[in-house]
Amino acid sequence: MYVVMVYDLEAERTHKALKIGRRYLTHVQNSVLEGEISKGDLERLRNEIDELLQPGESAILYEISSDSLVNRTVYGDDPTDDQRFL
Amino acid sequence: MYVVMVYDLEAERTHKALKIGRRYLTHVQNSVLEGEISKGDLERLRNEIDELLQPGESAILYEISSDSLVNRTVYGDDPTDDQRFL
Repeated sequence: MYVVMVYDLEAERTHKALKIGRRYLTHVQNSVLEGEISKGDLERLRNEIDELLQPGESAILYEISSDSLVNRTVYGDDPTDDQRFL
Repeated sequence: MYVVMVYDLEAERTHKALKIGRRYLTHVQNSVLEGEISKGDLERLRNEIDELLQPGESAILYEISSDSLVNRTVYGDDPTDDQRFL
């Protein structure tokens, strides 16, 4: 499973979401992580993020079957310098 | 085609990316838009975003074939109040 995670937390708390996300995914842009993840790790990620969030904060997880992400294109300066097509 | 777009611009310029994105997609979170888009509109979106970005800024477009987004889950407070499964 390929997952893209985006989050929006209070400024002084964003590092907490990043810390959790980095255990399972790759940080690709401010507030965005992505990567291949196992079912078990996805479950752990879900639980940790769900527990972290406070009112007014949110995170979205897009689960994509691994072979069906048609195109991933980075415009501008890619922080990860990674223009891979999946 | 279903597209998720995330962007990271200088704070005082983010509204410009949002303005372009909103012409084609739905704003679902701070710096994140998504939605169904035609090939023609996707091309227009690409060109407008590419033209907008300055050094150090970036945008990522994930193109997903419409039936392969397995799950979209929002944790915390959904700004769009939209928990749809696609």
